[in-house]
Amino acid sequence: MKVLIVYAHPEKQSLTHSLKEVAVQKLKEDGHEVIVSDLYAMKWQASIEPTDFLNHDEDTRLNVMLDSGIAYEAGALTEDVLAEQEKLRWADTVIFQFPFWWFHMPAIMKGWIDRVFSFKFAYGVGEHTATHYGDQYGEGPFTNKRALIITTIGGHKSHYTERGIGGNIDYLLFPINHGILYYPGFQVLPSFCVYETIKMNNGTFNNWADKLRNYLDDLETKKRIPYRIQNGGDYNLLELTLKEGTESPGQTGLNIHLDLTK
Amino acid sequence: MKVLIVYAHPEKQSLTHSLKEVAVQKLKEDGHEVIVSDLYAMKWQASIEPTDFLNHDEDTRLNVMLDSGIAYEAGALTEDVLAEQEKLRWADTVIFQFPFWWFHMPAIMKGWIDRVFSFKFAYGVGEHTATHYGDQYGEGPFTNKRALIITTIGGHKSHYTERGIGGNIDYLLFPINHGILYYPGFQVLPSFCVYETIKMNNGTFNNWADKLRNYLDDLETKKRIPYRIQNGGDYNLLELTLKEGTESPGQTGLNIHLDLTK
Repeated sequence: MKVLIVYAHPEKQSLTHSLKEVAVQKLKEDGHEVIVSDLYAMKWQASIEPTDFLNHDEDTRLNVMLDSGIAYEAGALTEDVLAEQEKLRWADTVIFQFPFWWFHMPAIMKGWIDRVFSFKFAYGVGEHTATHYGDQYGEGPFTNKRALIITTIGGHKSHYTERGIGGNIDYLLFPINHGILYYPGFQVLPSFCVYETIKMNNGTFNNWADKLRNYLDDLETKKRIPYRIQNGGDYNLLELTLKEGTESPGQTGLNIHLDLTK
Repeated sequence: MKVLIVYAHPEKQSLTHSLKEVAVQKLKEDGHEVIVSDLYAMKWQASIEPTDFLNHDEDTRLNVMLDSGIAYEAGALTEDVLAEQEKLRWADTVIFQFPFWWFHMPAIMKGWIDRVFSFKFAYGVGEHTATHYGDQYGEGPFTNKRALIITTIGGHKSHYTERGIGGNIDYLLFPINHGILYYPGFQVLPSFCVYETIKMNNGTFNNWADKLRNYLDDLETKKRIPYRIQNGGDYNLLELTLKEGTESPGQTGLNIHLDLTK
């Protein structure tokens, strides 16, 4: 496989960095090609700026969504963004590896999403008809690619279970897994979450490294999170609400968007 | 009241900017003091960098959490961060106003959180005993302050309802409202969400501006989202899991963290 790892941590001696090295080594041992976008090392520009769109006239009103699509189609994006889009085209699997800062990814990685996922490149494609509301949520530019999160979390695992005070980690990651990744079409694999990173020692690190290697063993055949396909019949068009009675007994909240029959 | 608006949008002719102006004018008319942190205008640095901690030796391993606390306590944070922390001390209400990009805030605002919410300033305080697991989730440095989100969303409201494909907006905002704001102690008010921003015209804008003014009318007395208090008896210490039978009938998923008896 061709694996792109989008990685964000400012410290080379960090746990996140060490686990990234574990992943790279394991993937290469298994015969995969690996490219790493090390956002801190690249001094990645985090904020979208009007200057990101080379054909944008600074005296006219900027519409970030539309202007990113116009610039994309005109070949008028900046070199740094174009290079990342090319890596995305190349990859068949994309790993996002980051420390879980304030219940989300670090700003520098959020800025990678904001800037690289241009309109018309990552979304805003496909026909709109009575039975098809664009190519999104399970369809779209990245349909044949897989994506997954590897994240390091300071707190205990119990804080992020179904009854944990922080909220079930699957719900906390839903805006990323379903919103950022599934929306433009990625097949999203279950996230690999490392807990209690604050109290890591050599022994616990080795355990986590083993778990990560095991997790990556069946990367090619691992089953995706069974999010429902927008245009597959489960949702009312154009409201995009789940049809009554579609969910399985006991499914509530964000879980209704999982097709448990799959 | 003393209101700090943390605002992020790169375009002065944007809807988000116009609604920010509506909010500022309304709040001032009502006699409140208002300070705006306009992150794009301030050219806010989004990414945490090792150079953010002036007493950090670049040859030693950076621990972002611990080193932010050490720098905070030593008065060794950068001027830009210190200025925002001072605004937070001053404010009794903090509004985060931003476009909903990729199911979260823009990178520049996530970076404001990452950098300004230093360890020991925003969290990592309070005693740890058998009945008290630090001051967090309802207790903490910002306990007597109120916070709320005002956000502009491109899609239809139906996409973000309980059965909407994007996920209920309350669940999508939980990582911000509960994780970023309630965790360090803010009393979190219900979010003000503007939908269908892509198709806004003068008439619909005026309607939204009216709704926003109405929303802000009772800002001082508005009831907070009734998230449970960590150390209030509802959660098992130290696992921080909700005690069995605590929730009301029908409460599931992220909603179990709401105290509906309040």
